Amino acid sequence: MRTFLLHLSLAATILAVRTFAQQPSSARQTEARPRARDLGLAFGLYEPGPKNAITDVPGVLVGQVTLIEGENVRTGVTAIRPHPGNLFQDKVAGAVFAYNAFGKLVGSTQVTELGQIETPIVLTNTLSVFDAASAVAHWTVAEPGNKNVPRSNALVGETNDGWLNDIRGFHVKVSDVLGAINQANDGPVAEGTVGAGTGTVAFGWKGGIGTSSRRLPAQGSGDMLANPDAKNDVGFTIGVLVQTNFGGRLTIAGFPIWKELQPQQTSSLEPPAPLNSADGSCMIVIATDAPLDARQLRRLAARAILGMARVGSTGSSGSGDYVIAFSTTNRIAQDATRTKPLALPSEDALSPLFEAAIDATEEAIVNSLLRATTVYGFEGHHADALPLARLRQLIRAR
Amino acid sequence: MRTFLLHLSLAATILAVRTFAQQPSSARQTEARPRARDLGLAFGLYEPGPKNAITDVPGVLVGQVTLIEGENVRTGVTAIRPHPGNLFQDKVAGAVFAYNAFGKLVGSTQVTELGQIETPIVLTNTLSVFDAASAVAHWTVAEPGNKNVPRSNALVGETNDGWLNDIRGFHVKVSDVLGAINQANDGPVAEGTVGAGTGTVAFGWKGGIGTSSRRLPAQGSGDMLANPDAKNDVGFTIGVLVQTNFGGRLTIAGFPIWKELQPQQTSSLEPPAPLNSADGSCMIVIATDAPLDARQLRRLAARAILGMARVGSTGSSGSGDYVIAFSTTNRIAQDATRTKPLALPSEDALSPLFEAAIDATEEAIVNSLLRATTVYGFEGHHADALPLARLRQLIRAR
Amino acid sequence: MRTFLLHLSLAATILAVRTFAQQPSSARQTEARPRARDLGLAFGLYEPGPKNAITDVPGVLVGQVTLIEGENVRTGVTAIRPHPGNLFQDKVAGAVFAYNAFGKLVGSTQVTELGQIETPIVLTNTLSVFDAASAVAHWTVAEPGNKNVPRSNALVGETNDGWLNDIRGFHVKVSDVLGAINQANDGPVAEGTVGAGTGTVAFGWKGGIGTSSRRLPAQGSGDMLANPDAKNDVGFTIGVLVQTNFGGRLTIAGFPIWKELQPQQTSSLEPPAPLNSADGSCMIVIATDAPLDARQLRRLAARAILGMARVGSTGSSGSGDYVIAFSTTNRIAQDATRTKPLALPSEDALSPLFEAAIDATEEAIVNSLLRATTVYGFEGHHADALPLARLRQLIRAR
Amino acid sequence: MRTFLLHLSLAATILAVRTFAQQPSSARQTEARPRARDLGLAFGLYEPGPKNAITDVPGVLVGQVTLIEGENVRTGVTAIRPHPGNLFQDKVAGAVFAYNAFGKLVGSTQVTELGQIETPIVLTNTLSVFDAASAVAHWTVAEPGNKNVPRSNALVGETNDGWLNDIRGFHVKVSDVLGAINQANDGPVAEGTVGAGTGTVAFGWKGGIGTSSRRLPAQGSGDMLANPDAKNDVGFTIGVLVQTNFGGRLTIAGFPIWKELQPQQTSSLEPPAPLNSADGSCMIVIATDAPLDARQLRRLAARAILGMARVGSTGSSGSGDYVIAFSTTNRIAQDATRTKPLALPSEDALSPLFEAAIDATEEAIVNSLLRATTVYGFEGHHADALPLARLRQLIRAR
Repeated sequence: MRTFLLHLSLAATILAVRTFAQQPSSARQTEARPRARDLGLAFGLYEPGPKNAITDVPGVLVGQVTLIEGENVRTGVTAIRPHPGNLFQDKVAGAVFAYNAFGKLVGSTQVTELGQIETPIVLTNTLSVFDAASAVAHWTVAEPGNKNVPRSNALVGETNDGWLNDIRGFHVKVSDVLGAINQANDGPVAEGTVGAGTGTVAFGWKGGIGTSSRRLPAQGSGDMLANPDAKNDVGFTIGVLVQTNFGGRLTIAGFPIWKELQPQQTSSLEPPAPLNSADGSCMIVIATDAPLDARQLRRLAARAILGMARVGSTGSSGSGDYVIAFSTTNRIAQDATRTKPLALPSEDALSPLFEAAIDATEEAIVNSLLRATTVYGFEGHHADALPLARLRQLIRAR
Repeated sequence: MRTFLLHLSLAATILAVRTFAQQPSSARQTEARPRARDLGLAFGLYEPGPKNAITDVPGVLVGQVTLIEGENVRTGVTAIRPHPGNLFQDKVAGAVFAYNAFGKLVGSTQVTELGQIETPIVLTNTLSVFDAASAVAHWTVAEPGNKNVPRSNALVGETNDGWLNDIRGFHVKVSDVLGAINQANDGPVAEGTVGAGTGTVAFGWKGGIGTSSRRLPAQGSGDMLANPDAKNDVGFTIGVLVQTNFGGRLTIAGFPIWKELQPQQTSSLEPPAPLNSADGSCMIVIATDAPLDARQLRRLAARAILGMARVGSTGSSGSGDYVIAFSTTNRIAQDATRTKPLALPSEDALSPLFEAAIDATEEAIVNSLLRATTVYGFEGHHADALPLARLRQLIRAR
Repeated sequence: MRTFLLHLSLAATILAVRTFAQQPSSARQTEARPRARDLGLAFGLYEPGPKNAITDVPGVLVGQVTLIEGENVRTGVTAIRPHPGNLFQDKVAGAVFAYNAFGKLVGSTQVTELGQIETPIVLTNTLSVFDAASAVAHWTVAEPGNKNVPRSNALVGETNDGWLNDIRGFHVKVSDVLGAINQANDGPVAEGTVGAGTGTVAFGWKGGIGTSSRRLPAQGSGDMLANPDAKNDVGFTIGVLVQTNFGGRLTIAGFPIWKELQPQQTSSLEPPAPLNSADGSCMIVIATDAPLDARQLRRLAARAILGMARVGSTGSSGSGDYVIAFSTTNRIAQDATRTKPLALPSEDALSPLFEAAIDATEEAIVNSLLRATTVYGFEGHHADALPLARLRQLIRAR
Repeated sequence: MRTFLLHLSLAATILAVRTFAQQPSSARQTEARPRARDLGLAFGLYEPGPKNAITDVPGVLVGQVTLIEGENVRTGVTAIRPHPGNLFQDKVAGAVFAYNAFGKLVGSTQVTELGQIETPIVLTNTLSVFDAASAVAHWTVAEPGNKNVPRSNALVGETNDGWLNDIRGFHVKVSDVLGAINQANDGPVAEGTVGAGTGTVAFGWKGGIGTSSRRLPAQGSGDMLANPDAKNDVGFTIGVLVQTNFGGRLTIAGFPIWKELQPQQTSSLEPPAPLNSADGSCMIVIATDAPLDARQLRRLAARAILGMARVGSTGSSGSGDYVIAFSTTNRIAQDATRTKPLALPSEDALSPLFEAAIDATEEAIVNSLLRATTVYGFEGHHADALPLARLRQLIRAR
């Protein structure tokens, strides 16, 4: 009955077309759902930043466009801007770790060759990834200061929302991508059924966008962790944003939820897949203000996979899992003959950053599930939100 | 004066809009220009196939759309279909070698992960690569037999034709890409100022599309080279297609042309770049009917770089050089649980294929230069065709 | 007091020199300690093979030499032979996944290029890895049938046992490595403080060698899983062997042991490191009789990292984590011009193998900890065995 | 008759055992043979440094041990020290480019992960590579200042000298490797039949060690090329050292020698291979004082392959071609928490360095052939030195 009522209430929201606000149209429901820390869950040693979001890394902006239209369109766009300036002229050091490259991450090879990211990072659905990359290229060309720029290495990732969304309809338009980029801001980040996570499914439940952050202590952890640019006694920050569409055995903060709680088919007529499937993918974006170079950022990116494992990934063949990492501090000016001098942390000094990235990835994935609301969509398919009452019960019983 | 006259004659052709024929609108001029073998040049030990083109590999199709419009549009699309059937349902083993990944090859990471190519390979200009990939995705979704297919790993490469073409105008449309794919056929392949080579520049001269092939002898080279599927006594075939937009010290069949013959500025008003620049890129596609797997195809692809070196590449940072290789014989059915049994050549047996690939790449690059015609384009820039009379003289004098 | 008594009993065993038996000299203690399944723990969906060891994969042999000498030598060798025959003449398809390549895996680049393993896989300590590789080369050259063989791509991995072992003494000799290779057999595999695990430390506890296996069901899982070579109705087998020397937050079968149970310093004089350090490394070897090619084996190898994560890896910079995978069914004869025809599983069909590899890796790591006995060694350092009584308590209380 | 006389004169020299001097025992003959520039040949735009050797890069040291013993031992060791200090404590930024990883380069994976080289780079024969790595590990452990160092990522490459050398005899001893490292100096570098090139064969002729360098102009090439640490007006330096054992179609400074001049069998009893074989390998080491990071060094390393192509490589499967590159300016202290601040050249500014590396590689390979003397060795096999009189004739006739 629960799902039926949710169905009705969602039916009301789907009258809303192309919502360009950072809050999804189903904001009221979303607000009602907790984040992991609201349930008393904690992940690892370090404390989150004030927003517990990727936007805790100074300068990082996020914008999202949610597309819920009629019965069949459940998709969207999430854009991450490494800084508010002209990214082509003032690139950031970046890296990609392709754990399972069964996915269409546009732009990764040049990022690996040059160690630079020169555009916003955009997430969307699998078949719209190319249109989104074209939008990024248009955006680059149109940016003030890029008058003669003849290229743009758009960096666009995706997961497949074809269960809930009419993915073959190519519903993401250039204007949607530009909307997400242009509205990007450094406020709290909407999670769950929003942006590129509008139609995704994880562990058989409704997945979506999630985020989390960590602030490393400046003291007691070695000089490397001290952030000379930060006010007060604060170390570097790591922020993570995920688009969850993968599966396995759902484990929340170490608790094996999958043993007690599994998504149900609501009707024998409904095709079961992918409710219990581990297929699907996960896109992970890591931002930091620590002054890492591209090689170190690739090492950092690789750690996020351990966070996926903690939540229960079983590494299925069809799960295209990529991690993108960038440093807001390590900038490369397009027209300079030399880069500004930069002191890198030693490799050993990276371990706390690695650990923080794993913890924040784990928490971001859990947030994406907790905040997501039940969605009915394409051809009547649906994905239930993780049932909160039962979940609280399981956590208390622990 | 020569260049001025060519300017006039080209001025006539640029009235022609979007030409969907495989022969460029400037066909008359193109026909008049020789291929390398017409000049008595030879490259390596093995003989070319009957067309001396990538289409000598049975089943491989090429289609090109040349966009010459007004004063500023000089670009186009070249599409290579590994076989005439449904590529998503009947994939080919494939690999990418990213020698210098300063370029936007869409689709390479999934090709590397799965060892499969599931779409036509499309070449175009740098800023249109995403629109072209979107077109490929649309084509995949629309193919008969792909009714429920929710994804498409479009494989689209590019070089930057921004010297001659208004690249910031995004002039390649979805219909242009579909046109190239749909008209693809197994006939001779137009070279020079055509398709994705319409606006490219190589070694300061007009570059473009070039192709060549090699047929390995079936006898005297070990059992591996015998092609059991071929009629008569013929071994496996290697075909190469290039889009040349790179530079260095032009060397033709071992002759250091660069010492005697260099492109000139026609006016002190004309910006010199990139006439003597080694920047720019080269896309190389290798087809074979030898039954290689993805790992072996990557090894084969890597050899093409040696062919670039022979023509004089100086490996500049800005030259984004990628090689794509596929086997028409090693097929992977989308819906099969197991692949058909396949016997691979031993690694040692690959050496003749490697040598043939280098030779064919060298010849294809030379063909792209010989067949290209002078082009005037964007903002009055031009690139001269390699002057034939002087070239013949230099070769005779050798 | 416990550790003191153990110290005394170990003091007795260390009179034993170079033990060439597969059972360590401290066999009595080892026998007394349980494997994970003896504690009622289970990992994942699939059942282990009869030995729950890498030797459940038909043909795979393991041999170990344990070096416990005087006060300071605590090291050894573990050798895995993919099949009992001449490996150079009859190679197996193989792959390496370098998750964190801060480690000295000799031989990986050629394995990646050719997709072949042509020697036993040997594990030892960090500084002895080169001497062990030399021993493998000598072994290859001396093998009957290799009369003119002029090369050997020895594949030798390591972790750093310098806390308990006088690693700078280079105590592993050629004869030790040959001993491990030559005594290799397909029986049960000794775990814990044995072979290459004699001096390793994991999660601050004594780590070592661990193993586990999975047999995939032949029915109900699609044709791919059926093993046509197996008697009865059995599917393919996956076997895993680990050398554990890494750290993080110890988690056993989902239970966060690290919260309740942490290794103690026995004296304020003892240097604390690495008892609570996450540094150190993990070597993982995966065998299967499923007919995978090198690319697929690399995908399989990558999944083992998820197993490390489940046990609590925090991915520290210094943890050099490599996975080696091979297929006993996919053979490459040295002198053949073509390989035997082979049908590969489809990529989708790999998912059950991936899941089994993760589960078996998790269980192998836990076995390495459970079976390991307390060791005192180099400069009086020690590492305690995981205390069983307390562990049983924690598991029961769950 | 020529080769017979050379045979006699070499027969005299082979009484000399283990020669620890940087000049080979056959020094007199070697002195008589020219380097490429002595023949009036030039390669590329930039000028060599004063020694035209890798030792033109300030601080770089080379040491070689030549092993010519009895009838069958023709091998040796070449060691390159990036700087004279303690390399473990004061590492250099480094990278490996594995063009064709059919070869046993020990140490490359850690170099790639950490971007650091922490030992001398040693070259030797294929089967001795592991013993040489062990020697490097012993050397590291014994270095003053490394009292507690528990690891050493030895970086040791090889080519297969099994045609002229009794490679299966493992004749390179630890003391030979230590000898090469310890005698390393910054003087001129002996070329040809010396060190790790004592028994190698290239293009069917006697190959060996070769070297060359380039000094980039400080003026007129952009600020990047200016070396602030150099006296006078000198830019950065690139130095290359090669161990040639590969083949193809020998081309010297653009002249197709292979068409006119091919090695002969001296007797029908002599097995022909590998006199006309393209198999075998090439190891290339690039040093620079330009302040590149590991990613940029990998890009630089990749360019050397174009130099191999210019001399005629046909890229055979069996040619294991690796390039190692390091920067003497980009240092990483073992114990520092952060690196010293470093300004990197922009990617565009790398192009002159890339071109210089290609040119120097080409010249170093030619030097290795020109300076090599005829060698008779294992089982009576021989490799002729490139015949100088005929070569001069061919060059003059050009």
